[in-house]
Amino acid sequence: MYEDVKISLENLKNAFDILSRENSEKKNKFLRKLAQRLDESRDYIISENNKDVQRARELKVKESLVDRLVLNDKRINEMIESCRIVENLRDPVGEVVDSFVREDGLKIYKIRVPIGVIAIIYESRPNVTIETAILALKSGNTILLKGGSDALNSNRALVGIIKEALDDVGLPRNAVELVEHTDRSVVDYMLKQREYIDLVIPRGGKALIDYVVSNSRMPVLETGAGVCHIFVDESADIDKSISVIDNAKTQRPGTCNAVETLLVHKNIASKLLPKLKELFDTKRVEIRGCEETRKIIDCNEATEEDWSTEYLDLIISIKVVSSLDDAIEHIKKYSTKHSEAILTENYSNAMKFLNSVDSSTVYINASTRFTDGGQFGMGAEIGISTQKFHARGPVGLRELTTTKFVVFGNYNVRK
Amino acid sequence: MYEDVKISLENLKNAFDILSRENSEKKNKFLRKLAQRLDESRDYIISENNKDVQRARELKVKESLVDRLVLNDKRINEMIESCRIVENLRDPVGEVVDSFVREDGLKIYKIRVPIGVIAIIYESRPNVTIETAILALKSGNTILLKGGSDALNSNRALVGIIKEALDDVGLPRNAVELVEHTDRSVVDYMLKQREYIDLVIPRGGKALIDYVVSNSRMPVLETGAGVCHIFVDESADIDKSISVIDNAKTQRPGTCNAVETLLVHKNIASKLLPKLKELFDTKRVEIRGCEETRKIIDCNEATEEDWSTEYLDLIISIKVVSSLDDAIEHIKKYSTKHSEAILTENYSNAMKFLNSVDSSTVYINASTRFTDGGQFGMGAEIGISTQKFHARGPVGLRELTTTKFVVFGNYNVRK
Repeated sequence: MYEDVKISLENLKNAFDILSRENSEKKNKFLRKLAQRLDESRDYIISENNKDVQRARELKVKESLVDRLVLNDKRINEMIESCRIVENLRDPVGEVVDSFVREDGLKIYKIRVPIGVIAIIYESRPNVTIETAILALKSGNTILLKGGSDALNSNRALVGIIKEALDDVGLPRNAVELVEHTDRSVVDYMLKQREYIDLVIPRGGKALIDYVVSNSRMPVLETGAGVCHIFVDESADIDKSISVIDNAKTQRPGTCNAVETLLVHKNIASKLLPKLKELFDTKRVEIRGCEETRKIIDCNEATEEDWSTEYLDLIISIKVVSSLDDAIEHIKKYSTKHSEAILTENYSNAMKFLNSVDSSTVYINASTRFTDGGQFGMGAEIGISTQKFHARGPVGLRELTTTKFVVFGNYNVRK
Repeated sequence: MYEDVKISLENLKNAFDILSRENSEKKNKFLRKLAQRLDESRDYIISENNKDVQRARELKVKESLVDRLVLNDKRINEMIESCRIVENLRDPVGEVVDSFVREDGLKIYKIRVPIGVIAIIYESRPNVTIETAILALKSGNTILLKGGSDALNSNRALVGIIKEALDDVGLPRNAVELVEHTDRSVVDYMLKQREYIDLVIPRGGKALIDYVVSNSRMPVLETGAGVCHIFVDESADIDKSISVIDNAKTQRPGTCNAVETLLVHKNIASKLLPKLKELFDTKRVEIRGCEETRKIIDCNEATEEDWSTEYLDLIISIKVVSSLDDAIEHIKKYSTKHSEAILTENYSNAMKFLNSVDSSTVYINASTRFTDGGQFGMGAEIGISTQKFHARGPVGLRELTTTKFVVFGNYNVRK
């Protein structure tokens, strides 16, 4: 049972021995080759992807989901661009992150090294195949990909192209392997292979993530949902605040770093909310307000469920709070620990918010939309970690490494 | 069932809200108070410990295990000294570990913050109670302690003293909680409390660690066994090599960083081994050699099992290998990824060994005995991590923190 997956895992482990010791030069050459091969294989990719798309349409899958599945020239261009971006990122492998030189001259360096075999379990979007593979490979890891069954033909084509590009530059083609089984129990099998898999990254909805966390024997890097909050303190600049809230809600509402709940200090609510409503009406943003909000502006009623909902849409819930502490309490109760912001001119309140809110990213006077590997100068990311262990916030190349100590001695002995 | 543990967990979560935001000043004051209270409570501690010791003797527990249980003036002095050491360590909370300032002036700082509620599951030695508690508390975490049932009275006394010291300085006494249930199923219960426990650290034998890894729903920090290797390359200085091997084996054989297997290049074996045997005979170190070793010196035969055995004793297994590659292969097969060393004068071989051996610490020309938080300048440690995720090698204060991004803006919006 799943003997082929076991063979893939053996291959990945052996390939890691080679890839983990490669310099950036060859890894970057691979990324250029991959970009070239993706460009040359457009017709092939699109025709293989078409099989998946047709099958989805036959199965009457919702058109919005079919859209996520589609690969076209534009999306292939994005993949090629990703290769170029990752090629230009500095390779973290070998970076010294800490050092200590002892009195006896022993030099202790803590350096970054690749993690090992990384399993990525994801749903639908086949462009994730390229995005995650290139980040994992550039940081010296090998990867087992388990994509959605609905994208099997697309993923098979893309993984084939990655293997060819690895081959082109003399890197092991087994540094990437695809799980082609489409049943759910192959995931259970994968999650037990602690001997082979060093890290598993689920990319998808909450159900998938919860399942992986509950059943995995190996470390999990969780990239979770974002119920992000902005708190407008009484001292905030109203016009600037509105521009930040607008940006956080409407610039790209379908992303995990978009704001979902606005908390407004009661002493600024009557000035801020009417102006905000005016703007949001023109942008067709639905407001769901608490009782106090509804005394000030005309809007729908927010239910208990709203406070924990990630809308990913042009909807915002608004609550009037009587103090900074109330805002912090609300966030503590409902936040998914992704990104939260305070808008204020009060220094002490700003610092208290920073110290008290336990989320991956906490902002003073800025839009939550910045929580992103690209915006944070990391070049690219595999997701936003909302857990606390190993990596928190945007996960880029560095977060796909671990460390080891290398020690340079002169036949030193311990006294 | 286990309602009291649930209440402890609620308490710990609330205490974390307070402790995680405390400055070092109060935490250090707590450590001074704790040292003072331990000193003043010697009679009480020893009499409570006596109950555990007597019970163990009644149960005919082996005297070597009873010895691990005993608290006496010397061991209490060591606990007090630990408080002083940890007090003097720099508090990692708030340290900026990375930063990025955007073109638009947005300042993105990645800072260290405490992890949360840490559960520590350990066996026997009650001094672990103090050692782990003070490291976890100094780094701003709160802790759930589950000690061995054989040390319950001792642990209850020590945790009581910690709580008093917390109280003395105005820190929440619920920042540390003891699980008093002695059945095994309370561990299962703990390992499911993902909502409350952010990290679990098993300290004990392989069976305990494996059990926790297999059953835990939350991240585990593994501190594993050490089957450590030294490879003597053909170009090594023989006398200096012998002094390093001697140090690694005999300076404190019962520790996880002591060497267990010596790999000797065939071109140096006939010169090195007789000298080593001469020394080890005087020190009563038992040698278990491979066939080639036994052609050169008179010693017991190493079986297949020896290569994967952590002796923790005055025993060493020796294998003659024909190349650096053979040595690396042997290590890959048998190492527990703790610490390995090469002794050589050949630069390229040294660098190849460093790059190829995937262990927490890899040495050139030094004893494996240095793998230790104290020796590495970390002041104190909670153990040596032999896993790859989050922390690898000695686990000190910094490794008991995670990070978050704090972002200072000027009403910045994303374009």
